[in-house]
Amino acid sequence: MQLTQFTDYSLRILLYLAHHPPQDGERLPAVLDISRSYGISTNHLSKVARLLVQNGFVKATRGRNGGLQLARTPEEINLGEVVRRSEPHFDLVECFDQRTNTCPITSVCVLKGVLAEAKRQFMAALDKQTLADVVGTRVKLVQLWRGPKPGG
Amino acid sequence: MQLTQFTDYSLRILLYLAHHPPQDGERLPAVLDISRSYGISTNHLSKVARLLVQNGFVKATRGRNGGLQLARTPEEINLGEVVRRSEPHFDLVECFDQRTNTCPITSVCVLKGVLAEAKRQFMAALDKQTLADVVGTRVKLVQLWRGPKPGG
Repeated sequence: MQLTQFTDYSLRILLYLAHHPPQDGERLPAVLDISRSYGISTNHLSKVARLLVQNGFVKATRGRNGGLQLARTPEEINLGEVVRRSEPHFDLVECFDQRTNTCPITSVCVLKGVLAEAKRQFMAALDKQTLADVVGTRVKLVQLWRGPKPGG
Repeated sequence: MQLTQFTDYSLRILLYLAHHPPQDGERLPAVLDISRSYGISTNHLSKVARLLVQNGFVKATRGRNGGLQLARTPEEINLGEVVRRSEPHFDLVECFDQRTNTCPITSVCVLKGVLAEAKRQFMAALDKQTLADVVGTRVKLVQLWRGPKPGG
């Protein structure tokens, strides 16, 4: 049981941007800054950032001091919503996807409902949290990210 | 977000065996019966059945009327335990596995705790259920499985 790397990276970008809000006269963080800070692929992170922009979590600005910033306050970014929009699907087992399901007992099987309830509990725990709830130790986090900081 | 096919098939085997308990003078279900009933690979299902035997959920008997049967009553087979023993891991995101984690902010990141709590809620929902809770509509299920029945 795992979330996709895409969701992992979505959450990491949001966390980074929450810790690097726009500062007067400084350029905004770029995907390159974020990928270097985490030591992960810029190419993959670009695709993740693009979806975060499309989904209205992140705003991208062009130009000299352009870059990425949160499109909403951290309090307005619900973690359940982020995970829902980042994961390609929540089909825990075959019968969750009616289009490809071949299991012959689906119509009367009770197990599907039990697994669906577990999934609901998982998402309910995330729905209770916003990005603001996980941005707690700003100074320490900024020290741990690698390399030069945007605007530095 | 999904469970492995291995876990899906583990649950299917247990469900099938709960619906086909030993009957006097009849042979026990074989992996071939179960794979035909669900229309899935016998080869893959054999590996799943082997782990269920190793984990004490299923008992395998050799000989003329041999085959598979539940090693405990359905009431004694907890679904959370089955999923825990079938899934290779529960590393929702990279930082859950200390051996391979590269994220530099792990030591002070609060997000990991939020995801771990969601995982706990997921498993808690399954821990409340036994195989007996999902074996509700015996007659209908038996009608839906494909092909000849064991002992038939």
